[in-house]
Amino acid sequence: MAAADPPPTAVRFGIIGCANIARKVSRAILLSPNSTIVAIGSRSLEKAAAFAENNGFPASAKAYGSYDAVLEDPEVDAVYIPLPTSLHLHWAVLAARKKKHVLLEKPVALNVGELDEILAACESSGVQYMDATMWMHHPRTAEMKGFLADERRFGQLKAVHSIFSYNFGADFLKNDIRVKPDLDALGALGDTGWYCIRAILWAADYQLPKTVTALRDAEFNEAGVIMSCGASLRFEDGLIATFYCSFLSNLTMEISVLGANGFLRVHDFVIPFQESVGPFYVNANTKFAELSIGIEPSPTEHLVKTELPQEARMVKEFSSLVRKVTDHGSETEQKWPTISRKTQLVVDAVKASIDKDFQPIHVVY
Amino acid sequence: MAAADPPPTAVRFGIIGCANIARKVSRAILLSPNSTIVAIGSRSLEKAAAFAENNGFPASAKAYGSYDAVLEDPEVDAVYIPLPTSLHLHWAVLAARKKKHVLLEKPVALNVGELDEILAACESSGVQYMDATMWMHHPRTAEMKGFLADERRFGQLKAVHSIFSYNFGADFLKNDIRVKPDLDALGALGDTGWYCIRAILWAADYQLPKTVTALRDAEFNEAGVIMSCGASLRFEDGLIATFYCSFLSNLTMEISVLGANGFLRVHDFVIPFQESVGPFYVNANTKFAELSIGIEPSPTEHLVKTELPQEARMVKEFSSLVRKVTDHGSETEQKWPTISRKTQLVVDAVKASIDKDFQPIHVVY
Repeated sequence: MAAADPPPTAVRFGIIGCANIARKVSRAILLSPNSTIVAIGSRSLEKAAAFAENNGFPASAKAYGSYDAVLEDPEVDAVYIPLPTSLHLHWAVLAARKKKHVLLEKPVALNVGELDEILAACESSGVQYMDATMWMHHPRTAEMKGFLADERRFGQLKAVHSIFSYNFGADFLKNDIRVKPDLDALGALGDTGWYCIRAILWAADYQLPKTVTALRDAEFNEAGVIMSCGASLRFEDGLIATFYCSFLSNLTMEISVLGANGFLRVHDFVIPFQESVGPFYVNANTKFAELSIGIEPSPTEHLVKTELPQEARMVKEFSSLVRKVTDHGSETEQKWPTISRKTQLVVDAVKASIDKDFQPIHVVY
Repeated sequence: MAAADPPPTAVRFGIIGCANIARKVSRAILLSPNSTIVAIGSRSLEKAAAFAENNGFPASAKAYGSYDAVLEDPEVDAVYIPLPTSLHLHWAVLAARKKKHVLLEKPVALNVGELDEILAACESSGVQYMDATMWMHHPRTAEMKGFLADERRFGQLKAVHSIFSYNFGADFLKNDIRVKPDLDALGALGDTGWYCIRAILWAADYQLPKTVTALRDAEFNEAGVIMSCGASLRFEDGLIATFYCSFLSNLTMEISVLGANGFLRVHDFVIPFQESVGPFYVNANTKFAELSIGIEPSPTEHLVKTELPQEARMVKEFSSLVRKVTDHGSETEQKWPTISRKTQLVVDAVKASIDKDFQPIHVVY
């Protein structure tokens, strides 16, 4: 099925790489009303052509047998980069130099040094950068933030816990790029811990922790890649945050946020169990009932509907920022590179703590 | 309202102290079919008499103006001790010496040294000991354990997180016994952390952690009593457990248990939101659906009904063990003192870690 014609002002995406996640994001680009796909590049032309055909690309979309060809195509406004993390530095920097706006899959880089090179290239070329952390763009996320910002119902932020894990089985653990030291050296920390860390920073209004301490013990595969780990983050004002991420545990996607006057929990924060509605649960000003039997008031469920899936909202937001730059000469939006860099800093600190025998690591922006 | 006549074989309780929690446990004793109340002692006779009248004690129940009088009463088979923690050593040991079976409110002691004196006194007199951790006795707890023991649906235990907090406001924080260093020196760690630690040990089949490390930073009141803290527990086999407990955050009672193949969560583990039914939620063998949109299978809710409230089931279980000892000459049941001691050991380790600048503390039974 080919997509409907996009409006003439649609941001024209090129995709470099045919990773599985690119299927979902291709669909999101085609669902997004201000975006379209004009090119895909793979190291194999046949693979690129098959990907375009199997994922409903417009008939006019070009398939290339290299990533470079996508970056050289003058019709490409922006690139989506789903390559293995170790290739991000090279291709994201090159894309920026070619004046392509960059939507970069996470983990965005192997360390903040690499990310800084990518961000500097984007800054220097005046192109928009955003990491592909989809849940940030679900309307539920803003609604949850509204609760956390409510002094009366939530109050001071005291503790956050997040879990993201999945267990895709023996084949994944043996063959997936995410367990290979030369492709995704951050393993479960980069792929799943990234979301937990973003969740904690999000809850803390992007305040950085003072120190980060990995929790004993982390688990590694034979190549030394992290298969599971956890950490505690120490903030100003007594806030304690913890997370656990893993490739060895059942698919689980939790955030719990505890405040002086309220509590929020969400059980499918990374990818909603249902595409069109995201639930979350709150308790506010909760007391025990008489004789400490039961509580008052009861917890409440909040259902946040979304017409576009969160990943299409992400693309739409990215393309809207791109248009502001290209059509109106606006500055690029700095929120996205800033929170991406903060997330990477904490990823790096967890990794450093694990490498340094679980000692606390100071975090400096 | 006076209670119905108990059967002649009912275990006859004396209560020493009129703490608020004693109201709930008195109701539980009267609800329990194998238990009754025959005496209550307070430092004030008037207070004891008023407590008996206001809490539906049998008309024959005696009110005493001292705790000693309860322990001297030959009609008293067992005592429930809801006194401040710093008084537990004296009164629990004395009760045991007077051959009274001991149902002891938590936190059971200021440290494991004190608890060992209490347990030795109970052992020496051949009386049953149990701590008053009510949620252990909800039928939901056994049903949840069944899920955790299911190799196919849950598998290896990988991570546990628990929260118990409440925020009873300024008057509590100024005046309650639980914030006074001479009465309940363990503060939030003893009163709320106790439950989190028990939850972790319960999930881990009462295996003790190798080390316990308190999380930076804990909060204290002006007298130096812990108002909030957290810790990470490191077990054999890579299990990581964390908890957070507080007097400064909204009433929240969470356990999350993550396994290789499943996930369990409960949101009211300490005191069910509804007295007659306890829910819990599980995911098992969860995978992302096609294109990583949604999951399969969906999480399931399990509702566990209970005719008797969990605290009445606790009393019933305790009295049943007492009867085995008194009527059948059975040995006392060692499960309850054993898990009480393990819980206290971890409480002590968290306290020691806080006192030693958040260093890891080895735990030895």
